[in-house]
Amino acid sequence: MQSQSLAAIAADLRAGKVRSSDLVALVVERHAASEPVLNAYRTWAGDRARAQAAALDTLIASGIDLGPLMGIPVSVKDLFGVPGLSTHAGTNAAFPKEWQAAGPVVKALLAQMGVVTGKTHTVEFAFGGLGTNPHAGTPVNPWSSRETPRVPGGSSSGAGVSLAQGSALLALGTDTAGSVRIPASFTGQTALKITHGRWSLDGIVPLSPSLDTPGLLARTVADLAYAFAALDPEAAGPVAASDLAGLRIGVVRNTVWDDIEPSIAENTGQALRVLEKAGAQLSDVTLACTEEALAIFRAGGLAAAELRAFLERNFPERIAQLDPAVMARVEAVNDLTASDYLQRAANLAQYGRTAAQAFETVDVLVSPTIPVTAPTIAEVADPETYRKANMLALRNTALANLFGWCAATLPTGLDANGIPSGLQIMAPPMAERRLLAAALAIETAIGSGPEMLGKAPLA
Amino acid sequence: MQSQSLAAIAADLRAGKVRSSDLVALVVERHAASEPVLNAYRTWAGDRARAQAAALDTLIASGIDLGPLMGIPVSVKDLFGVPGLSTHAGTNAAFPKEWQAAGPVVKALLAQMGVVTGKTHTVEFAFGGLGTNPHAGTPVNPWSSRETPRVPGGSSSGAGVSLAQGSALLALGTDTAGSVRIPASFTGQTALKITHGRWSLDGIVPLSPSLDTPGLLARTVADLAYAFAALDPEAAGPVAASDLAGLRIGVVRNTVWDDIEPSIAENTGQALRVLEKAGAQLSDVTLACTEEALAIFRAGGLAAAELRAFLERNFPERIAQLDPAVMARVEAVNDLTASDYLQRAANLAQYGRTAAQAFETVDVLVSPTIPVTAPTIAEVADPETYRKANMLALRNTALANLFGWCAATLPTGLDANGIPSGLQIMAPPMAERRLLAAALAIETAIGSGPEMLGKAPLA
Repeated sequence: MQSQSLAAIAADLRAGKVRSSDLVALVVERHAASEPVLNAYRTWAGDRARAQAAALDTLIASGIDLGPLMGIPVSVKDLFGVPGLSTHAGTNAAFPKEWQAAGPVVKALLAQMGVVTGKTHTVEFAFGGLGTNPHAGTPVNPWSSRETPRVPGGSSSGAGVSLAQGSALLALGTDTAGSVRIPASFTGQTALKITHGRWSLDGIVPLSPSLDTPGLLARTVADLAYAFAALDPEAAGPVAASDLAGLRIGVVRNTVWDDIEPSIAENTGQALRVLEKAGAQLSDVTLACTEEALAIFRAGGLAAAELRAFLERNFPERIAQLDPAVMARVEAVNDLTASDYLQRAANLAQYGRTAAQAFETVDVLVSPTIPVTAPTIAEVADPETYRKANMLALRNTALANLFGWCAATLPTGLDANGIPSGLQIMAPPMAERRLLAAALAIETAIGSGPEMLGKAPLA
Repeated sequence: MQSQSLAAIAADLRAGKVRSSDLVALVVERHAASEPVLNAYRTWAGDRARAQAAALDTLIASGIDLGPLMGIPVSVKDLFGVPGLSTHAGTNAAFPKEWQAAGPVVKALLAQMGVVTGKTHTVEFAFGGLGTNPHAGTPVNPWSSRETPRVPGGSSSGAGVSLAQGSALLALGTDTAGSVRIPASFTGQTALKITHGRWSLDGIVPLSPSLDTPGLLARTVADLAYAFAALDPEAAGPVAASDLAGLRIGVVRNTVWDDIEPSIAENTGQALRVLEKAGAQLSDVTLACTEEALAIFRAGGLAAAELRAFLERNFPERIAQLDPAVMARVEAVNDLTASDYLQRAANLAQYGRTAAQAFETVDVLVSPTIPVTAPTIAEVADPETYRKANMLALRNTALANLFGWCAATLPTGLDANGIPSGLQIMAPPMAERRLLAAALAIETAIGSGPEMLGKAPLA
C-alpha cells in the first residue's frame, strides 16, 4: 500500500478498499521498527493519529469527503504550530503555548483531516542545511549504515527521514535556503519549495521572514503535485505533466558544478541524457549574479540578522543556549549595520531580477540539487568541517531562495556512498504549476524516485 | 473659476464652458504673480502645460473624455518621475534620467491627461517636516509676511504652496511621517495620506520604503475625494459624505495635545464643538503605544537607516553634500545594528495592531494635525531649534504612519500667527473610503477650508 500514489490511496479510501486506520496502523508499525535508530520525530503522535483515523473512517464510510488529504498520514516539521502538540523549533525547550496555534498551511491540512503523525526534528530555528541538532539528537540518514551514520540533510531533517521510514506519506517542511530540498535529496525523496509570499508564514516559528517559505516533501513528484493542489489557496486543480518533447530545459553551467562529487555529477549527467533522448530541448545557461548572491549568503545573508532580532525581541534568554553551530552564524552578524542589511536585501532583489532573465529562453532551469554526499554525523562535529560542508550543501538550493524563485528536487540515483542524489528544477516566481508540470514529466522519464521507494537500508 | 470644485470644473470642461487652456492660462498667471516670493517649484513647466492644454482642448471639443482629471492643472512633488522633467528630489543635482520614468501614480494621472504644471520643491529626500531646503531655497508660507517669512511645512513643501498660490488645482505629494498633511495644514489646504502599500511607490525617489506613501493635497476635501476616486486602482466610484449624525469620532486625548499652541487648541476645540452640535458622537480616546512608537521615531525610526542604505548603494557621492539637517539624522543611525532595525520594525507592527483596537468603538480618530505654528525660516536655521521644531511638527501625523493607518487633514482656521491650523482624521488600514466619507461630512460642518480659499496674503 505504501508504494501507491496519494491519488490512488485517496481513491481507495473513498471506495472503501482501504481505511485511514489501516494507513495509520502501517505508519505506526514502520515508525516503531526504525525510530530508535533513525530518530525522525521530536514528538510522535501515533495514538492520537490512530484515534483520529478511527473516527474519520466512520465519517468516510458515511460518505463524507473533507478533501484530497483526508485520512492521509502526514508528518509536520516542528516549526509549525499544530494544536495540542508542543513546538520546540529544534531548541532545548518547548515554546509558549501560542506557538501551537495553526497557521493557514496547517489549517488547510487539518480542515481536510490529514492525519498528523507527529512533529519531526529540525535544525534549531531551521538554521542549517545538514540536519544536525545537539539538543535532541541528529536524525540518521536511512541510506547510511549503523556503523557510519550520515546526516539526513536539513533543516527539515526529520521530514525526509519520516518519508523514507514510512511513518508518513507526506511531510510539511520549511525552506529558507534549501531546507526541504536538501533533506529530500539526501533521503531519496522529492520536495517543493514554494515562492516566497505565496503561502502564509503565520503559525510557523521564523528563521528569516524575508526568505522563509513553507514547503512539501513527498515520495514522488506525483504526490508533490497532488499535495500542492490540495493545499494551495489558489486551488487551480490538478497539475498535468508537461510534454517532455519540446520542454526547454536550461542546464545551469556556472557555480553549481564546482567541487561536485564525481558520482553525483555522473548521476545528474545521466538524467540529463535521458531527458534529451526523450525530446527535451536542453541548453547550457550561465546564470547571472550567482557568486554575488552567494557572497551575501556566506556572510550570513538576511537570515542571521533576522533570527538574531527575533531572539533578542522574544527569547533573549535562549541565545546563550543555542546550538554552537547556530550561535556561530548569529554572532557573525553582531556588527552588521542596518544599512548593510538593507543593502543586502536590495542587492539580492536586483540579482534575482537579473538572473531571472535566463527564463526568457527556457521553461525551467536545472542543476544538481546538492554537489556533495551526506557527510557523516561524526565528521561534522568539528565546527570548521561543519561550516564548509553546510555551505556546500546549501549552495545550489540557496540560489533559488536568494533569487526569489520556486524550486523542486527529485532523485537521480545513488552516489558512490550509497546516498541518493537529486536534480533541482527551478522556475520563476509564482510559476509553481509550470515547475510541477515539468517535474512530473522529468520524473516519468528518469524513474529513479519510484525505483528507490522503500529501499533505504535502515528504514 | 479657481474657487470651483474639481468636479464642477470637470463638468464645465465637458460642457464647453471652460477650456483646459483657460485653466492653464490662469495658473500660469497666478504662478508668475507670486513665484518670485513663494518659490513653490523646482521646475516650472508652464509652456509645456500650455501646449498640452491647447492640444487637449481640441480633443475635448471632439468629444474625447480621458478621465476625471483630464485638463486639470496638477503640480507634482519633485520625487515623482515625470517623463521630460528632471528629478532632483530636493538635492543639489538632477538624478539620472531613469528617475524621470513615471510610476503607476503618475501614469494614472497622465493617462487621464491631467496637465502637469511643474515639479514642486521638497525637503531633500523628503526627510524633514518643516519644508526647509538649503540647496534650492525654502518655499515661503503664503500665510506669513515678506518681513517674517515662515516655513510652508514639508516635506511636500512646494505642493501646499502651489495650491495656495493657485498655480495648481491638485498636487501630488508623498508622506512618510506627515509630509502631505503638514504642508497642507500650514498652508490651509487638505491632504490625504494613503495606507502604505495601497498605491505603488515605483517611480518615486525613496526615503523609507517601509513607510513611504504617495499622497494628495487639494484645496478641499471634496477635491481630495474626487482625485482619490480618479487615481485609486480599485476605482470603486465617487465617495459620498457620511451622515454626521451618529458618526463615531474618537478624540485622541493623550500625546497629541502636549505642548500645543493655545490658539491651535482653541481652533481644534471649536471644530469639535461644531461637530458635536451637528450630531456626531464624540468620545475621548487614549491611544495605546503612542510614546513607544514615537520613541522609535525620534531615534531615527526606520527612515534614517533606509535612506542611508539607499544612498550608500546608489549615490554614495551625494552623502557628503546632504543638507546638514538631513545629514544629522542619517548619521545618527551609523551604529544602528541590523537586529535593532528589525526589532524596531517588529515593534512598530505590534504597536500598530494594539493601537488599532481604538477603532473597535469609533469610526475615525481625530487630533490636531500639528500642535505648533509654522516657525520662521530664520529661526530654524539654528540646528537645535530645527531639530525640536521638526520633531514637534511631525509628532501627531507620524503616529498614523507608524501605526500603518490612512489619514487626512483639513483646515480649522487661523492660529495666533495667522497661520492655518488643521484637524487630522485617521482611519484603519485600507479604510480610505470611510476616512474620506467622514472628512467630507466634517468639512461641510466646519467650513473653514472653503472660507480660506484664495485668501493667503502672499499668494
